[in-house]
Amino acid sequence: MILKFKFSMHLKRPTLLIDKQKCLANIRLFVVKAVKYNLRFRPHFKTHQSAEVGSWFREFGIDKITVSSVMMAEYFAKNGWNDITIAFPVNIAETDEINILAKQIKLNLLVENVEAVGSLSRTLKNPVGVYVKIDTGYHRSGIEVEKYDAIADLINIIRRAENLNFKGLLAHNGLTYLQSTPDAICKVHDESLTKLKRLKDSLKKAGINPEISIGDTPAVSLCRNFEDVDEIRPGNFVFYDLMQQELGVCRYDQIAVALACPIVAVHVERLEVVIWGGAAHLSKEALNDEGGGKVFGKVVLLDKFGWTLPLDGTFVKSVSQEHGIIKTTPEHIDKFSPGVFIGILPVHSCLTTIMIKEILTLNGEVIHTMNC
Amino acid sequence: MILKFKFSMHLKRPTLLIDKQKCLANIRLFVVKAVKYNLRFRPHFKTHQSAEVGSWFREFGIDKITVSSVMMAEYFAKNGWNDITIAFPVNIAETDEINILAKQIKLNLLVENVEAVGSLSRTLKNPVGVYVKIDTGYHRSGIEVEKYDAIADLINIIRRAENLNFKGLLAHNGLTYLQSTPDAICKVHDESLTKLKRLKDSLKKAGINPEISIGDTPAVSLCRNFEDVDEIRPGNFVFYDLMQQELGVCRYDQIAVALACPIVAVHVERLEVVIWGGAAHLSKEALNDEGGGKVFGKVVLLDKFGWTLPLDGTFVKSVSQEHGIIKTTPEHIDKFSPGVFIGILPVHSCLTTIMIKEILTLNGEVIHTMNC
Repeated sequence: MILKFKFSMHLKRPTLLIDKQKCLANIRLFVVKAVKYNLRFRPHFKTHQSAEVGSWFREFGIDKITVSSVMMAEYFAKNGWNDITIAFPVNIAETDEINILAKQIKLNLLVENVEAVGSLSRTLKNPVGVYVKIDTGYHRSGIEVEKYDAIADLINIIRRAENLNFKGLLAHNGLTYLQSTPDAICKVHDESLTKLKRLKDSLKKAGINPEISIGDTPAVSLCRNFEDVDEIRPGNFVFYDLMQQELGVCRYDQIAVALACPIVAVHVERLEVVIWGGAAHLSKEALNDEGGGKVFGKVVLLDKFGWTLPLDGTFVKSVSQEHGIIKTTPEHIDKFSPGVFIGILPVHSCLTTIMIKEILTLNGEVIHTMNC
Repeated sequence: MILKFKFSMHLKRPTLLIDKQKCLANIRLFVVKAVKYNLRFRPHFKTHQSAEVGSWFREFGIDKITVSSVMMAEYFAKNGWNDITIAFPVNIAETDEINILAKQIKLNLLVENVEAVGSLSRTLKNPVGVYVKIDTGYHRSGIEVEKYDAIADLINIIRRAENLNFKGLLAHNGLTYLQSTPDAICKVHDESLTKLKRLKDSLKKAGINPEISIGDTPAVSLCRNFEDVDEIRPGNFVFYDLMQQELGVCRYDQIAVALACPIVAVHVERLEVVIWGGAAHLSKEALNDEGGGKVFGKVVLLDKFGWTLPLDGTFVKSVSQEHGIIKTTPEHIDKFSPGVFIGILPVHSCLTTIMIKEILTLNGEVIHTMNC
């Protein structure tokens, strides 16, 4: 028999449950890894965007963080963080806000073109650290890693500018998310590092000695090669999610968040369950189902300890704005009835966290984020 | 030459621009249609979730609305709306809140099973109107339309319960969104109405005379058959979006929202532009590109009047949490440079609206929603 979830009385609406013990274990793993490989650990806080969750990192001595916007930097600065990298190509429409922040804290910015560097050098009144975004093959943003001369030129413009202190090269190898095995992840990780090393060697000849900052949860979780890397900036690992589980990066029992959703209807004949929990809560991020369909989340039962492992053959097969439709099996259909809350492990925890207004730990503590 | 957008100085971050004149024209079209076909018009406010946008409907004499949650009903009740249908299967975990609302306003709920009806009949202290959700083939939620006896049984339970006033049958024919031509949309609409009519005829023989409420933007926009329909509840039409344009439901120039996004990088060689505007703003809702890829938004230029028509061959080809990648053509690449804001027409305006914190009309008025 499954004992009842302790805080059922707190559940009214779709609510993100956070298992703090799992978060702490996930953070610890990465702290240990950073120490082992002598890496500066600057976790990305875009995954949780929460002062409370952020405070859990302090217990491990972490005092440097990564964020993805000026507003997020402002929020965490207000909550006592004073060494922050905004790891998104700088938005020069926010120069005023950047100036204020740079006066208050140690701020690092990311650039990838002369337009942004020019604008910063004209308008900044306080010193900032500057990283150059390098594209090692993912082709989302950054200067292509092979363009040694263009990169050296940009770095020299930065070095000549007042208030811009060149720090190093920053990369995000999103290719790791496109692989299907841990070996494949570490192969594209190695390739990315080799390219960065060649770039660094070339820059050294031009009298530039940049540090190297990398940051994707799959590679940092799984790989053992961190040659020439100075800093890691993973974020997702604090919660993990189904995408990471599918990549082989984490186990189901390491996923530290589940969306508690009320069941509003059960359709026994077609083995489907309707929950209040849709694209407005889980996003439209999906994995591919073996049968050619989509998986928008996997289903767990809430219990005395938090939640169970996923029920086999049971998943969110579609979402609209507020509805989620769960497909289940004859074995499990009896576990669902209207009014009961069940849990959904999200495909992409970062997107779920930013959309959810109600967050609760397994100790019944209400958690706030910068969005609520 | 394109004259500058009037409120450029207000743009700092991804900001949803709303063209109020287009909204008013869209509302007017539906008001006229409702009058012509003698239909009660109860627009769905989940698309905008905003007291200000809601107030624009009042100019047309609209005083009855639809929402998708108890919290949304509370928000609009506080803003002076006193006849509200919550068109989502009732969440019995919120009975206390429903009781309070039912005392304040004329409230209609939606049910589809005896569990919910039983719970309501035991706990409600104030009268509510009750609709039964009917599934006419979309298979998301509701009782299947052919189950005449089960539907009659549920209605009779409702009619015997204190404080539950049976009103009618409520359907949402989401199948219209799966069609590719206006003719196909009206065909599945007609099929849905035929099924509802047969159900109604059967119920009449059992002494039940239900009203019929339907509500999807494509069918209400395009079709001319509303036989036996008493009420329409479309929502998306106030803003429209690329999904509706692709269905043939609206023109590009009727889309009343565009997400203004700062350009942070331009990669001329691969004809790509990086914007701050990703899944956190546009959602992961996508249309299929002719080339087999995905389209997460189409690109317009901001100008003196608001925004242009979409640039041909130019679209958001991928999104991550904060980044959007625009693919463009040699003809248009010169129009993009770092620091400039461009507009994105969203694929699904409802999802964009609920995620965006900063909203501005073309008159420079800041708009608030229940989420910000």
